[in-house]
Amino acid sequence: MLGDWLEQLGSSASTPGGGAAAALAAASGAALVEMVVNLTVGKNAYAEHEAYVRPIGEEARQLRLRALELAGADQAAFDAVMAAYGLAKQTDEEKAARSLAIQTATAEAAQPPLRVAGVAARIIELAASLPGRSNRNVLSDVGVAASLAVSALESAAINVEVNLATLKDETVRSELRRELDAHVATGQLGREIVGNVRRGVSG
Amino acid sequence: MLGDWLEQLGSSASTPGGGAAAALAAASGAALVEMVVNLTVGKNAYAEHEAYVRPIGEEARQLRLRALELAGADQAAFDAVMAAYGLAKQTDEEKAARSLAIQTATAEAAQPPLRVAGVAARIIELAASLPGRSNRNVLSDVGVAASLAVSALESAAINVEVNLATLKDETVRSELRRELDAHVATGQLGREIVGNVRRGVSG
Repeated sequence: MLGDWLEQLGSSASTPGGGAAAALAAASGAALVEMVVNLTVGKNAYAEHEAYVRPIGEEARQLRLRALELAGADQAAFDAVMAAYGLAKQTDEEKAARSLAIQTATAEAAQPPLRVAGVAARIIELAASLPGRSNRNVLSDVGVAASLAVSALESAAINVEVNLATLKDETVRSELRRELDAHVATGQLGREIVGNVRRGVSG
Repeated sequence: MLGDWLEQLGSSASTPGGGAAAALAAASGAALVEMVVNLTVGKNAYAEHEAYVRPIGEEARQLRLRALELAGADQAAFDAVMAAYGLAKQTDEEKAARSLAIQTATAEAAQPPLRVAGVAARIIELAASLPGRSNRNVLSDVGVAASLAVSALESAAINVEVNLATLKDETVRSELRRELDAHVATGQLGREIVGNVRRGVSG
């Protein structure tokens, strides 16, 4: 079932593209947090942590579904940008209308990757809360979850930045930049989890 | 089609797990390299680079298929390790046979993530060769490809290291470690591509 999607991703069709791939990485990271929680609850050795980790698993499930929705939203938003670029540009009126449509569609297209960045940042926070409380046998999966979420965050940031470069309205630009930077800051925590897990599984 | 796989990933079923998710990230990165090439060949503006980028696209396609195969191989190898742990351990003979079976299955289980690391390293090299020769409009996708390949490499390394920690044979361990380190070294190039792309798309 993954093969068909990957073949579409590799094709010259404009969607799915990097935005959807970023969302998929976020969804994979969320699913691994969920898996680690599912392999922790109901085990005697972790009974004392069950009340703590159970809501983390539930939130991770929601984030997985949200990331998958955003992959679809990213495709739709990108198609709308392409449609705006395809508008007639013969007369001055047409040129002005096309330019406005491009600006509007581009601002809209920044939203799905911005939200993917927010989802990825939250997955990093959830992953960070697991070591020491979750099943020790799947510590490596916490590290993979964090690594994928960091890449999803970074990839989503690239896609927001592509849109920022086209936007002319300084107010819209700086608001998007501010929101993005707040999410991107969480990337450092994600890198720390990966480093800690690698030391933890090796020793 | 992705939703079902992600739900399985999030479930308490032991496979798919982090190893398969790492392989999927590598396959996504490969597919994006392939996409960028597919959006470059046949365009007049990039005619001079066509002979250069076409084999990159073909190799990326092969790597995409290989990564997807490795996701399946990772699951099979992990199941074999679990089966070894499940062997009888009542008598001394049983204990010795079980211990040997665990060591053999664990050494085998290091192979799929080691190969994913190699695939990811090669995707990074392919992505590095594209900027300046591929379609400028999809430069961001080169950055996402590199980011996902770096995460696939890092995630695969975590999974190799988990197996290394169980292996008792120092010769096997050091050979696996040597091969892994050779792949991991390419991660730095991947981070540089991501940084260069982010500066490039921003302005």
